[in-house]
Amino acid sequence: MKEKFFRIFALIGLLAVPALAWAEDGTSEVAYVLNTFSFLISGALVMWMAAGFAMLEAGLVRTKNVSTICLKNISLYSVAGILYYLIGYNLMYAGVDGGFFGSFGFWGPDDAAALGGDFSAGYSSGSDWFFQMVFVATAASVVSGTVAERIKLWPFLIFCVLLTGVIYPIQGAWSWGGGWLSEMGFADYAGSTIVHSVGGWAALTGAIILGARKGKYGPGGRVNPIPGSSMPLATLGTFILWLGWFGFNGGSVLALGSADAAIEMSIVYLNTNLAAAGGIVAAMIMLQILYKKVDLSMALNGALAGLVSITAGPAAPSPGAAVLIGAVGGILVVLAVPVFDKFRIDDVVGALSVHLVCGIWGTLAVPFTDSEASFIIQIVGVLAVGVFVSICSALVWTALKFTVGIRVSEEEEHSGSDTAELGLEAYPEFGRGSQALK
Amino acid sequence: MKEKFFRIFALIGLLAVPALAWAEDGTSEVAYVLNTFSFLISGALVMWMAAGFAMLEAGLVRTKNVSTICLKNISLYSVAGILYYLIGYNLMYAGVDGGFFGSFGFWGPDDAAALGGDFSAGYSSGSDWFFQMVFVATAASVVSGTVAERIKLWPFLIFCVLLTGVIYPIQGAWSWGGGWLSEMGFADYAGSTIVHSVGGWAALTGAIILGARKGKYGPGGRVNPIPGSSMPLATLGTFILWLGWFGFNGGSVLALGSADAAIEMSIVYLNTNLAAAGGIVAAMIMLQILYKKVDLSMALNGALAGLVSITAGPAAPSPGAAVLIGAVGGILVVLAVPVFDKFRIDDVVGALSVHLVCGIWGTLAVPFTDSEASFIIQIVGVLAVGVFVSICSALVWTALKFTVGIRVSEEEEHSGSDTAELGLEAYPEFGRGSQALK
Amino acid sequence: MKEKFFRIFALIGLLAVPALAWAEDGTSEVAYVLNTFSFLISGALVMWMAAGFAMLEAGLVRTKNVSTICLKNISLYSVAGILYYLIGYNLMYAGVDGGFFGSFGFWGPDDAAALGGDFSAGYSSGSDWFFQMVFVATAASVVSGTVAERIKLWPFLIFCVLLTGVIYPIQGAWSWGGGWLSEMGFADYAGSTIVHSVGGWAALTGAIILGARKGKYGPGGRVNPIPGSSMPLATLGTFILWLGWFGFNGGSVLALGSADAAIEMSIVYLNTNLAAAGGIVAAMIMLQILYKKVDLSMALNGALAGLVSITAGPAAPSPGAAVLIGAVGGILVVLAVPVFDKFRIDDVVGALSVHLVCGIWGTLAVPFTDSEASFIIQIVGVLAVGVFVSICSALVWTALKFTVGIRVSEEEEHSGSDTAELGLEAYPEFGRGSQALK
Repeated sequence: MKEKFFRIFALIGLLAVPALAWAEDGTSEVAYVLNTFSFLISGALVMWMAAGFAMLEAGLVRTKNVSTICLKNISLYSVAGILYYLIGYNLMYAGVDGGFFGSFGFWGPDDAAALGGDFSAGYSSGSDWFFQMVFVATAASVVSGTVAERIKLWPFLIFCVLLTGVIYPIQGAWSWGGGWLSEMGFADYAGSTIVHSVGGWAALTGAIILGARKGKYGPGGRVNPIPGSSMPLATLGTFILWLGWFGFNGGSVLALGSADAAIEMSIVYLNTNLAAAGGIVAAMIMLQILYKKVDLSMALNGALAGLVSITAGPAAPSPGAAVLIGAVGGILVVLAVPVFDKFRIDDVVGALSVHLVCGIWGTLAVPFTDSEASFIIQIVGVLAVGVFVSICSALVWTALKFTVGIRVSEEEEHSGSDTAELGLEAYPEFGRGSQALK
Repeated sequence: MKEKFFRIFALIGLLAVPALAWAEDGTSEVAYVLNTFSFLISGALVMWMAAGFAMLEAGLVRTKNVSTICLKNISLYSVAGILYYLIGYNLMYAGVDGGFFGSFGFWGPDDAAALGGDFSAGYSSGSDWFFQMVFVATAASVVSGTVAERIKLWPFLIFCVLLTGVIYPIQGAWSWGGGWLSEMGFADYAGSTIVHSVGGWAALTGAIILGARKGKYGPGGRVNPIPGSSMPLATLGTFILWLGWFGFNGGSVLALGSADAAIEMSIVYLNTNLAAAGGIVAAMIMLQILYKKVDLSMALNGALAGLVSITAGPAAPSPGAAVLIGAVGGILVVLAVPVFDKFRIDDVVGALSVHLVCGIWGTLAVPFTDSEASFIIQIVGVLAVGVFVSICSALVWTALKFTVGIRVSEEEEHSGSDTAELGLEAYPEFGRGSQALK
Repeated sequence: MKEKFFRIFALIGLLAVPALAWAEDGTSEVAYVLNTFSFLISGALVMWMAAGFAMLEAGLVRTKNVSTICLKNISLYSVAGILYYLIGYNLMYAGVDGGFFGSFGFWGPDDAAALGGDFSAGYSSGSDWFFQMVFVATAASVVSGTVAERIKLWPFLIFCVLLTGVIYPIQGAWSWGGGWLSEMGFADYAGSTIVHSVGGWAALTGAIILGARKGKYGPGGRVNPIPGSSMPLATLGTFILWLGWFGFNGGSVLALGSADAAIEMSIVYLNTNLAAAGGIVAAMIMLQILYKKVDLSMALNGALAGLVSITAGPAAPSPGAAVLIGAVGGILVVLAVPVFDKFRIDDVVGALSVHLVCGIWGTLAVPFTDSEASFIIQIVGVLAVGVFVSICSALVWTALKFTVGIRVSEEEEHSGSDTAELGLEAYPEFGRGSQALK
């Protein structure tokens, strides 16, 4: 990503328009301010996605696990931030230089040059840290949904410590940190692979090692649907994620200090929006055709599928191509959900279909609209990240399983994590309807 | 704190970088960037209003229709985006030139001039499209609330296709697109008429053609109140709309690249806020006087009424005038709701009172504070848009009624759209209280 | 709309030429625009905090009082805005000059200098008003949570009138308005004392004068827990507040028109985030140790405690110090809640522990990382504000108590404010579970 950033600046240097009077080294204070502000506002929008995941997942689990999923989501965001400060950022970005990871050490701001009048860094170091930090939190958020309703709170958070402090940063170093994948030319603009599929692989290994919820799969391949507790919360979560995605993809322009950057950001915004729209409309049509009813939770996943699908390359496609890329994502999600169920991989919110399947699809779709990207290299990137994250995650999940344990007791699973681990119900005053007995 | 501020400025004085002059043609790259960024951030805030409508309406319908209203809101936003790309934008803006509509064709970005160093366009084409697109979605969002709880999903979406692809863009061409109303001098800053009343007229014709919900009106003129299912969601929706309105009105300055534009945007922000405040306070006082109790759902509509009322002219009024314009809106909404009921026009969420009545009021109020606006021309604009949208909408609703049908069966209405059309309940685990039997 | 845009540009053309260069007096048009835009966007984020308080409190009260707390939150925000326009702003900022309060009179925008090309004011007056206005609303929001479930609607709003129109502005004049505390060197960057503890003192006196909810405290010092009605809403509220806090603290840089300001804003953003993260993680660990379960509502208060704690000085600490400052806040909140209960001070949402206790802690922590701040002067500021606000608030609460009355009748408290004062239930269709009988 940094390479990209400097490429943009090189381009700006070539334009050398006298209107903005770029300083002689190709940068200026106003560009510095605008780049920094873009990181901050975009980062705040991505932070908001943590709330989106929390609401989406709170809406899609049963009432007895709603408080727990809320706590997991807000605490994983917090853990991600602290760990990324303690170790993650430097591991991902400090001196990777074509290799496999950076250096170890706390991150700290360094803006002495800019404070002295040299704006060649392009943006403040703190704004960059903030923006990168919210990305790692997104990867962790993907995991919590899949493994919900049966994983223990603290072991889950320990997994998040290792995911956000070590696993994510190392694979991130390969590409955005300027490592070997970056040198090969792997293209992943805002992280279909680097963020979303990473969360997906970590979630997949977790779901397999953890096992399905009790009662989800019956004998003879029967799949028992377990409806979520609150559809408006799930809808709200989807809207929050959609809004936050403008920061996720739009901020990944990594600049706002030139007309070129602003134009690119505009394209990214509108393509992001159109891909999400394509995703939900395609999913709705598929659902109507296949099932004669339009399941809302699947339709919402269609929108998210569109968003994940466009994330690897939101700046290159035409608007029509963005609709199509998103629409394919929406169709994939409708088809993928029953496949995971067939393999008895119990994904409570459909996060694997959205973030893993469409993360891969989005990454592979880049060469269709970006002539600089290579299909082969995209596959290499997807596989390398997938193998690395799956192995690391499996090791961590297994180690946790055989030490502190990762699954709540059968009795606790039946009564719900909320009373077992938190000691409070999510909705203590609402009487129980028939579904609650399941 | 102010001290600190000036210390910072003293420091800036020391730096004294000689950059960033305006180009001789009156534009500059930095203005181009700022104008573009304003469209993107404001547009993101307006997109967020789609979530606000979804939550407001989800809170004001009964539980059995909550999932459906959520799906309608997120899908209509998606349909609006795709249609505005396919046909709407060009129909509204491309070569209207004093006439009645633009040209037919897909929209596509065109920023070649700016990429070549000529910033006279003022902003990137994509940011403009994005901002205009979220406006058309707002108009469609108004409709879903009024016709909720009895309209079929797919016919409703077909109506949205025609509203956002054809009806809205054509009337928009008359004013914002530079058509005949614009040449007359019709003043509607951010769309009290062009957006809100358009949604209102489309909703009104829909409500009439569709008929009232079963049980809403009894014999002898009796009106049965049907309370909404979740007041906190309705409140959340109102807050979301209030926040989004800063983008709706503030972004309608259409610029940020000069001190004049920034000053105007500041006035718009604070007037928008004060009008909403005036609206809710006035509505609360009215409710206390008339009914001795302050119905929350009416108070929330008071805030929205204030927002719609100021939208036609948020830059001209003094702060005190903004409070008054909003307050009149808040009073109108309290008075209008029973009037619609008297005519047995069943408006589930009060959208007609908010968006149609106050949309008209706001448009007619412009000449009070803006000396350039004419009362007569404002009336012409309101009537022209009203007649056009009502006729077109009535034709579409009627055509749908006599082909695919627009109303769910009586049995489905009783059991709720959620199970009938979506196959899932919004809150499957919550037991039913006495109200749910209605 | 486009016409208008080009008219604006024509105007810019007339102003013309080297206006965007940094002026010789250390200001420039582009800095003016950026400073103004920062106030507007940051202010919009702080406005969003009003929604956060509404959702947090709606989640933490019982169902029978949910509608009322929603109405209180949205109406107090409205009252705050109108009062700050009518009297508050000028009382706080107009000609304080080292003294105790400013002048009386309506606020009005004054940007003639900037419209004439003199940008030395640094930002538009309206953007400053907007930003300051949302701060006073925050102080009032703190109060509603503590006194919930038993205070009457209209007397509460009368209190808000006096708090936002008179009490808050006078103490604000002492520091931010350039009064005596400011001259002493009191340091409170974004208002741990000036905003949060002010709300806390007003809430504390209210809770004492109002008395506890019926049934909260039993004989023999027994404390009966009264669980909140919706944990996901409380979580959503916390996320909203966290997001809004980036505007609260970040906007308090009061500038964006220089690299120095942008760098400072970046530090503020990341420290704010890390302090919140430290707060929740520390609170969770404390809860696990003390109670063996992690109560979600306390954990959420831990995040808010971290945010309040960093607010007095978010620009000076290193990232690690920010985590620690927040963590101490998170621990304090877990320890403080039972202390207030011991004194039978019934604080429904824990706002005293969060905003008062951590507001004080945050203010006193400033000298640890900011060498310009003095521990003694910080204590003076905390005490002066505390004594003044407590006395004024106590007078107002008492006057209200012996005139209109501040507490609902015992019967109304039992049946809930929603039916008694608003005439509508928050969740009319949800059957009552066992908790609801309490």
